[in-house]
Amino acid sequence: MVTSNSHKAEEIRSYFEGLIDVEHVCLECPEYRHDDVGEIARNKASYAFSQVKKPLIVDDTAFCIDALSGFPGPYAAYVFQKLGNKGILKLMEGEENKSAHFETAIAYADSSGIRVFHGIMSGTLVEPRGREGFGYDPIFEYQGKTLAEIPIIEKSRISHRAMALANLRTWIMAGRPVN
Amino acid sequence: MVTSNSHKAEEIRSYFEGLIDVEHVCLECPEYRHDDVGEIARNKASYAFSQVKKPLIVDDTAFCIDALSGFPGPYAAYVFQKLGNKGILKLMEGEENKSAHFETAIAYADSSGIRVFHGIMSGTLVEPRGREGFGYDPIFEYQGKTLAEIPIIEKSRISHRAMALANLRTWIMAGRPVN
Repeated sequence: MVTSNSHKAEEIRSYFEGLIDVEHVCLECPEYRHDDVGEIARNKASYAFSQVKKPLIVDDTAFCIDALSGFPGPYAAYVFQKLGNKGILKLMEGEENKSAHFETAIAYADSSGIRVFHGIMSGTLVEPRGREGFGYDPIFEYQGKTLAEIPIIEKSRISHRAMALANLRTWIMAGRPVN
Repeated sequence: MVTSNSHKAEEIRSYFEGLIDVEHVCLECPEYRHDDVGEIARNKASYAFSQVKKPLIVDDTAFCIDALSGFPGPYAAYVFQKLGNKGILKLMEGEENKSAHFETAIAYADSSGIRVFHGIMSGTLVEPRGREGFGYDPIFEYQGKTLAEIPIIEKSRISHRAMALANLRTWIMAGRPVN
């Protein structure tokens, strides 16, 4: 797992426990600008493999608000840092469509190439509730609860990242078929 | 001039007329994500020079709003496409500090390396006025007029891009000193 975020590395290590030994490689990958998280993850994986030269995964996550044409999209982290949830809710004033989704792309790279797995979690924007999680979690409601009201252990079972990891895991368990 | 924007190429060609023949190379450079336009331009120039292998310039522009911690910064084009000036003014509701600036970085690359030139234009956010220009021009007031109220020929003399070009030009006229 190539990331500069050790929490993320730990989450993924525990996900694959007993199946694959996951090692954390702390490497800052240059991120290309692209509207599609799959392409961003693919580019990061390509760069990381050129450095690490071992089978690896990287990930990238977008947060997309339908009424704002998908904003902030792949710039979720930057926008959160600048505007916070207050800014997002201000932009949503008067908007009727409150739907939004998270999307994670996980790219797996080895010497045979790169494969990208996606996971999506759809929900609704609400006034902030809850104290768990981070970022947009308090304003993102999924099945009646905000992500900040869902314990981290449950969130890491149902989240967009969990879905992408499940797709990766299924593929690995199937012997990494080419098609 | 390496850009996929032919208007920009034309503007820069006319700026250097009689001094240097500027050729337009239409090449889509991968853009790294970075908070600093200078670094974005430097990376683009490095990539472009590896492809074109002739002395070249590239540019990148940010739009920074002080009350929003510099948002949208280097993501100005993406954010304009998603939120428009309406979204920016919504975010600014209730904010007292209306100051903002444009910043252009122009990177010049040749076989001896890369040099970056900056140009800044500071102004104030206002309700939209004027029909010239594009993007944030109607809501950006500079010395009593919005950029959309200033004829394009005058704008291209006083703008952030013009300042960066002037710095580049001065350096070229001085024989490209190393320090």
